[in-house]
Amino acid sequence: MKVIRNIVELRAELKQYRVTSNGDCRVGLVPTMGYLHEGHASLMNRAHELSDLVVLSIFVNPIQFGPGEDYETYPRNEEQDLALAERQGVDIVFIPQVEEMYPTQTLTKIRVSEVTQLLCGASRPGHFDGVTTVVSKLINIVQPDQAYFGLKDAQQVAVLQQMVHDLNMNVEIVPCPIVREEDGLALSSRNVYLSSEERKQALVLSRSLSEVKGTLEQEGSLRASEIREKLISLINLSPLAVIDYVEVLTFPALSRINDDVLLNHITGKLIIAVAVKFGKTRLIDNLLITPKEAVSLV
Amino acid sequence: MKVIRNIVELRAELKQYRVTSNGDCRVGLVPTMGYLHEGHASLMNRAHELSDLVVLSIFVNPIQFGPGEDYETYPRNEEQDLALAERQGVDIVFIPQVEEMYPTQTLTKIRVSEVTQLLCGASRPGHFDGVTTVVSKLINIVQPDQAYFGLKDAQQVAVLQQMVHDLNMNVEIVPCPIVREEDGLALSSRNVYLSSEERKQALVLSRSLSEVKGTLEQEGSLRASEIREKLISLINLSPLAVIDYVEVLTFPALSRINDDVLLNHITGKLIIAVAVKFGKTRLIDNLLITPKEAVSLV
Repeated sequence: MKVIRNIVELRAELKQYRVTSNGDCRVGLVPTMGYLHEGHASLMNRAHELSDLVVLSIFVNPIQFGPGEDYETYPRNEEQDLALAERQGVDIVFIPQVEEMYPTQTLTKIRVSEVTQLLCGASRPGHFDGVTTVVSKLINIVQPDQAYFGLKDAQQVAVLQQMVHDLNMNVEIVPCPIVREEDGLALSSRNVYLSSEERKQALVLSRSLSEVKGTLEQEGSLRASEIREKLISLINLSPLAVIDYVEVLTFPALSRINDDVLLNHITGKLIIAVAVKFGKTRLIDNLLITPKEAVSLV
Repeated sequence: MKVIRNIVELRAELKQYRVTSNGDCRVGLVPTMGYLHEGHASLMNRAHELSDLVVLSIFVNPIQFGPGEDYETYPRNEEQDLALAERQGVDIVFIPQVEEMYPTQTLTKIRVSEVTQLLCGASRPGHFDGVTTVVSKLINIVQPDQAYFGLKDAQQVAVLQQMVHDLNMNVEIVPCPIVREEDGLALSSRNVYLSSEERKQALVLSRSLSEVKGTLEQEGSLRASEIREKLISLINLSPLAVIDYVEVLTFPALSRINDDVLLNHITGKLIIAVAVKFGKTRLIDNLLITPKEAVSLV
């Protein structure tokens, strides 16, 4: 496993690799902010299935954090990250400093409209501009055939697929299923912030989504408003939970559904997405469903 | 010369070319809006010097035109364009329909701040977002080593160089000198709009810039405000001229210069740029200088 910290060296290494493989190689990029867990490991596993060379990037991207968010305190542990990457058989780890990615303040931003307006885009203004900008930088540096992202950030996947489509970027965004702890909590680097009581109460997210899924499978004819109300009352049973949003939207367009519409009249995928704060920690979780069958896709 | 109208075919053709040349080839892209003239031809000549395969794109990009601008009436002549491209030894002409470049409305825009605030960016809001977005699409489709642009649109060059730098795009933006008619008029596809009287009076642009250049070479110690005032009074000698802007800025940062500063105290390049309407036709012209030597760079 090669650990590379600068762009020129990474490009040279990838060029060398492409020349020796006669251009007949698929390069897979797994962009992360580090503090890696089994969710990230699952992305690397998927990358090994579809790509020949797996590049992992670790970079806590300052421009996707808003004022007052957790950029400074975001958890970092390079040693553990490199050990996990090594164990996962990653070929190249790209781990640049901020000055390497932003030698000068970036005047250029990539902005995706509409799909960034609701959910985390509404709660975190400018967040997705930072995500699309850094991901396009990484894609331009690595020029991968595939880039792997977890569906816990389902909106991120929708936004990036839109960007790749609109800008004719020569890469496939590969969405990968949410990975959960045994008790259901979706894996996140931010889970480390939770106190033990918060950690316990945070289980309400996966439990509520799971209960709603069960209801949908049995009844199949709920309205978006009924699902939202059910989720809100379930989540509010946890006294520490402070709801940021509970939404039922089309996926990947992320459009609102009229409250009168029965979900099983909708063709295509839906996302049921929640963001909830426990103390200072904001957690997200979601369920992707095709309502005509009411079967989870992830 | 191959004429290609769709993206999939163009990508396949370029891939084939790269494979047969063992990756040891430089691809040059000359993005244009067609209605080609000797200014465009000079870009193709430069491309033959630096690149092995020359791809010319012809696409009148709707999203860089504002409401009330000349998108519908922008001059088009495919037959003449293909003849000029053939004569210039272009290898591939990419000439997509709007539906090929924008099969759905683009939700994604690339926005460069600061360098887009003055000059044409101020007069044409949103124009450069359209330019950076379409150029990045073309770059993603062709994946060229070099892309060639004329310095008549010097701000466009500055904006694109900033984008390429900020987004780590793997391409060199190659600026090429302004090409002029024998009487000094800078070549532009929009010159065809001019009546014969407007065409005559439009010579005031190159003549005024040239006179200011002469003054700078003799005196060398003018202030930005003096140059602006001199240009404004020279241009206003033409009764049909309606000035949009006359600016003296640093290049490529495109920052304003304090009116008190003597230009020969400035290190680095300056741009003296004008935009003037003659009837309905808006023309631009400019002069790039290094004031310490007061020598034109183009």
